[in-house]
Amino acid sequence: MSFNTFGKIFRFTTWGESHGPAIGCVIDGCPPNILLSERDIQSDMDRRRPGQSKFTTQRKESDKIHILSGVFNGRTTGTPISIIIYNEDKRSRDYESIKEKFRPGHADFTYFKKYGIRDFRGGGRQSARETASRVAAGAVARIILKNLIGSKFNVIGAVTQLGLMSCNKNNWDNKEIRKNPFFCPDKKSVKLWEKYLLAVRKAGSSCGAIIELRASGVPVGLGAPIYSKLDTDIAAALMSINAVKGVNIGAGMSAAYLSGEENSDEIRKLSGKIKFKSNNAGGILGGISTGQGIVASFAVKPTSSILNKRETIDKKGKNTSISVKGRHDPCVGIRAVPIGEAMLSCVLLDHYLMNRAQCG
Amino acid sequence: MSFNTFGKIFRFTTWGESHGPAIGCVIDGCPPNILLSERDIQSDMDRRRPGQSKFTTQRKESDKIHILSGVFNGRTTGTPISIIIYNEDKRSRDYESIKEKFRPGHADFTYFKKYGIRDFRGGGRQSARETASRVAAGAVARIILKNLIGSKFNVIGAVTQLGLMSCNKNNWDNKEIRKNPFFCPDKKSVKLWEKYLLAVRKAGSSCGAIIELRASGVPVGLGAPIYSKLDTDIAAALMSINAVKGVNIGAGMSAAYLSGEENSDEIRKLSGKIKFKSNNAGGILGGISTGQGIVASFAVKPTSSILNKRETIDKKGKNTSISVKGRHDPCVGIRAVPIGEAMLSCVLLDHYLMNRAQCG
Amino acid sequence: MSFNTFGKIFRFTTWGESHGPAIGCVIDGCPPNILLSERDIQSDMDRRRPGQSKFTTQRKESDKIHILSGVFNGRTTGTPISIIIYNEDKRSRDYESIKEKFRPGHADFTYFKKYGIRDFRGGGRQSARETASRVAAGAVARIILKNLIGSKFNVIGAVTQLGLMSCNKNNWDNKEIRKNPFFCPDKKSVKLWEKYLLAVRKAGSSCGAIIELRASGVPVGLGAPIYSKLDTDIAAALMSINAVKGVNIGAGMSAAYLSGEENSDEIRKLSGKIKFKSNNAGGILGGISTGQGIVASFAVKPTSSILNKRETIDKKGKNTSISVKGRHDPCVGIRAVPIGEAMLSCVLLDHYLMNRAQCG
Amino acid sequence: MSFNTFGKIFRFTTWGESHGPAIGCVIDGCPPNILLSERDIQSDMDRRRPGQSKFTTQRKESDKIHILSGVFNGRTTGTPISIIIYNEDKRSRDYESIKEKFRPGHADFTYFKKYGIRDFRGGGRQSARETASRVAAGAVARIILKNLIGSKFNVIGAVTQLGLMSCNKNNWDNKEIRKNPFFCPDKKSVKLWEKYLLAVRKAGSSCGAIIELRASGVPVGLGAPIYSKLDTDIAAALMSINAVKGVNIGAGMSAAYLSGEENSDEIRKLSGKIKFKSNNAGGILGGISTGQGIVASFAVKPTSSILNKRETIDKKGKNTSISVKGRHDPCVGIRAVPIGEAMLSCVLLDHYLMNRAQCG
Repeated sequence: MSFNTFGKIFRFTTWGESHGPAIGCVIDGCPPNILLSERDIQSDMDRRRPGQSKFTTQRKESDKIHILSGVFNGRTTGTPISIIIYNEDKRSRDYESIKEKFRPGHADFTYFKKYGIRDFRGGGRQSARETASRVAAGAVARIILKNLIGSKFNVIGAVTQLGLMSCNKNNWDNKEIRKNPFFCPDKKSVKLWEKYLLAVRKAGSSCGAIIELRASGVPVGLGAPIYSKLDTDIAAALMSINAVKGVNIGAGMSAAYLSGEENSDEIRKLSGKIKFKSNNAGGILGGISTGQGIVASFAVKPTSSILNKRETIDKKGKNTSISVKGRHDPCVGIRAVPIGEAMLSCVLLDHYLMNRAQCG
Repeated sequence: MSFNTFGKIFRFTTWGESHGPAIGCVIDGCPPNILLSERDIQSDMDRRRPGQSKFTTQRKESDKIHILSGVFNGRTTGTPISIIIYNEDKRSRDYESIKEKFRPGHADFTYFKKYGIRDFRGGGRQSARETASRVAAGAVARIILKNLIGSKFNVIGAVTQLGLMSCNKNNWDNKEIRKNPFFCPDKKSVKLWEKYLLAVRKAGSSCGAIIELRASGVPVGLGAPIYSKLDTDIAAALMSINAVKGVNIGAGMSAAYLSGEENSDEIRKLSGKIKFKSNNAGGILGGISTGQGIVASFAVKPTSSILNKRETIDKKGKNTSISVKGRHDPCVGIRAVPIGEAMLSCVLLDHYLMNRAQCG
Repeated sequence: MSFNTFGKIFRFTTWGESHGPAIGCVIDGCPPNILLSERDIQSDMDRRRPGQSKFTTQRKESDKIHILSGVFNGRTTGTPISIIIYNEDKRSRDYESIKEKFRPGHADFTYFKKYGIRDFRGGGRQSARETASRVAAGAVARIILKNLIGSKFNVIGAVTQLGLMSCNKNNWDNKEIRKNPFFCPDKKSVKLWEKYLLAVRKAGSSCGAIIELRASGVPVGLGAPIYSKLDTDIAAALMSINAVKGVNIGAGMSAAYLSGEENSDEIRKLSGKIKFKSNNAGGILGGISTGQGIVASFAVKPTSSILNKRETIDKKGKNTSISVKGRHDPCVGIRAVPIGEAMLSCVLLDHYLMNRAQCG
Repeated sequence: MSFNTFGKIFRFTTWGESHGPAIGCVIDGCPPNILLSERDIQSDMDRRRPGQSKFTTQRKESDKIHILSGVFNGRTTGTPISIIIYNEDKRSRDYESIKEKFRPGHADFTYFKKYGIRDFRGGGRQSARETASRVAAGAVARIILKNLIGSKFNVIGAVTQLGLMSCNKNNWDNKEIRKNPFFCPDKKSVKLWEKYLLAVRKAGSSCGAIIELRASGVPVGLGAPIYSKLDTDIAAALMSINAVKGVNIGAGMSAAYLSGEENSDEIRKLSGKIKFKSNNAGGILGGISTGQGIVASFAVKPTSSILNKRETIDKKGKNTSISVKGRHDPCVGIRAVPIGEAMLSCVLLDHYLMNRAQCG
């Protein structure tokens, strides 16, 4: 049982509140003797970091990570890696107004009802700030996987749907994703998305998003039926991210509309290599990786903190209304891309180690 | 770590292959002193059981459960409840033809690659027969929850999409669900669905489905952030079911298309009771239940065992093709309804106990 | 969290009561493709089985095990192995007299207070009958370890203290252990022990025992600091056995009386091999195996079911007394030998797999 | 699976090396709304802290703890409590001499063999410095237990054997324990122990110790058979402490020498209260607390870092010898007292919450 720990062999535990002195994580189960530096992790952190474009919150956080343990002479020692990130831009006064009211769409109400107490400053523990720790753990996982599997291993994510705006996935370009502020894989959509999101923000509103994750170089055989299936753990990993409401593996919900012939991926041996003719399975059959690319997607709901006035109740149960000012992303889904990549990396490393345990 | 165990406090471990002597489960963490009989569990079993209509496999299994431990004088003792279900209709000859070939869409290929050995008879461990054990565990969970929360607690599931056929959810009628062979909640759709599914079967094909689960009477406060969120565990529970490719909580994937105003559920106090004006959250905020109904849905891919010929390879890696005869459901999604209900019941009881542990 | 499950990767879950229809276990996390037959397991079962000499209970149980899953064509498949053992000699009438009274030294009182209900027949779940399942799991672990490490691996246990009677450990002879009914390693002590135990039984009394376990062929590097140390897990494994009150690793409690020079084992390289000059550490330093033999011992308290009258209370809290008739071992410690071996085997396999996961 | 995490519901994860920037722990599963301050924890820390008498290492560490999360307005919030302790007195040069050699009795050899890398500075992760984190977690557990059970709950430990010197347990005086530098419960022994330990230190040697722990006010019913028995978890908790080689519950190893009549504790109802006439069981029957005091003891081996020269090998496998200078406790067992108290407190709280989960 583990409220704040994720993973089975490669495990990370996160801690910290949005407006406390710091946040961080402890990463356990790391294979030893792998080169690891703060700089390696930092580059992933910088992709999630707020305040990088006009489309994300203007909270200023350098998100500088510090490794406090588990690395010696530049290498992992097999002991827990403790990472700390200090909170820098804590304007608690921003939140005094919402101290007594429950923001619709947020966990204010449920935390208060469950625990009888809540740190209301910036959402406290519910804040998406916690996801910075996940990105740090994911960076470690990715580095280890590259070390274990080789450089052919990669995980990349992109926003494929921004509110009502889709993109053409046939134009998917990994390099493009890192060039625009939306993690959009289709260069042709970027301008339109920019206009759309500016309009959303101007209207004091927000929009949702769909993120697609693709892992390549994943060996066949990862995944442990029945209750630690690879897709089960990916679903849990992605659904645990703040504001996520849906998860698809491969064809996902659309599989319901396909016929057996359309859906099941035929298998061929071509010039000595096993190839599936399609990948509706998203690289997973019976909970075990097929050796094809892993494909998963997830939906992030629109930011609940919006300027437009909403009805709610206060701590005493009195009806009232609220308009959430402050520094909020008009689409929190955008910054979910590196978080999704991180979670998928962690699941894959965990299953790599699990498979090594049972099957050698 | 637990390959074949589900849950944290209320835990069940399943075992058994499709064509072995029996299957079963061991249920641990049961509260003591609760009335429990084989008959109580059997009625849930009968809803999943094969061979009940022309739309499910004709394999004849009575799915009679036997309690071997953990119940004394008609009451749970707090010790593990072991349940066994004998396999009756094992026609292994049906599967000799597929012994050497990997069926597309099935886990034949991945099990063989992972373990280097597989029980090919009826899919062995990958078979959906395993889900009978889940239904038994879910029945126990439901009985305990009704005992702890009261009779206002209920979980009900229905097929809301059968391949290309939808139904009108506004006509949802709990009583209707138990009357037709499709677990369809809308009486008006039943006739059409029947025609549609007969056509699918006649074509030697299959179709997918979407199942919606609704839990009522769930108290506020269940769910343990950050990595044991209620929705995280529901997503894992449902994704672990055979052939499931997508999971939604509340608005689910559709949340991506909504604005912040449309999506976040406003809160009101009306005649002394807290009520949300909508339920896009599916009864869960920040991973914790809101006290509204829990709503989750999941997509089941079309049956992969179809008569129509498909390309594949054999154990030696040689290209070949396969046409799967035998006794298969044209839509495995239908029988997923009681399985989904069972898994949701288990998650809810588990979180009820977890919440009781931490918050008293 | 796992009330009735032991282990982390190689895990077994036991179920069943002394006088229910059967007991059994589900073994998970087994490496695949290893030869395993019921006969292999049965030979270990037979060493724990009651009714084999006049020094153990006369309950007649063949303890015949049946494998219900997880083995196909004589090999493990990597899926859970379910083992069932039917209870044959259930004379429930023997226990009617103790239905209302709590036997001193037994868990009658604590089970009743904790759960509010107890299966009093033969001790129900508290009965040492549960340990038959452990022996089955341990037999599987031992077979797998021999397969993974080689035939140099072995675990052997012996009774080194029978009540007030010691033996000379310098005369330790593995072959002798299997020849006498006491698992005594010193041939010279057998006759004396026989007289002693007959006297104990005749007096309507009972005695305790100390069991020493020795594992050879264990590779260096097993054990996962800080909280899954090899000795930590051995201590837990042995203390979980019924009636065990103390556990020692190597020098154990006696280490308190040694000086630093006497206790710490010096290290030498001799003809290319690393050798410790002594083994006070019991083969474990810092929770990790040193490559020397693992040595652990544990004390079993005297059988609490004795003929001599004892003071106690009944279910209603009224003072009363009890004399426990029935078929009881005068020294339950004797039959703890194969159980201790089984538990140590399970811990070693578990750590072998854990080490393989993290360190390759 | 959890290498660096202890506990099931109330869980703590420790991290950090002896000579890194800091050490710390993350405590999860805390009940919410309980008053908790850094000062409350600090007083326990101060009892373990080095440099307090001439009988402990002269390393200067203030062991000042900082709470980084999980507490808001002086109360626990139910979210993880992260505690950090900076390492202040890190004289790494002290350890350069042992960089290449394995100290006998230490984990230098096994860490190096397992991980292929080790942080040799001050023992790195193997250092007893890690136990400071345990004391912090234990302090939190104790505060919570007092809050849940009431002030009658207490855990106290004492050294009852210092090398060859025993004390008279009949003179046990809780107040005396806190007055002398040995945590000795018998005032009459203090002077003798002082002389003895000075002689041990002067001889460049070291000695072991036995610590006894007593918990009072523990309610009946804590403990979860079969594999989470209260005594099982206490054994694991104590054996996980550095240098511990043996653990006893109640009569412990001595139970082997008792007769059934001597050992099993008779039960009486006296003036409305249930009382056991003796407590050989150490307050635990069948793994469940009886409501009597919990009594456990453990042996700590003599400090392995001694001045006297010892034979060993170096990293390259060459025979050599070593004399360990530096600042070492002549008897590490003394400072194990607050660590043992901490671990026992954590186990008791964990079981309190577990029992609340299952039994309400």
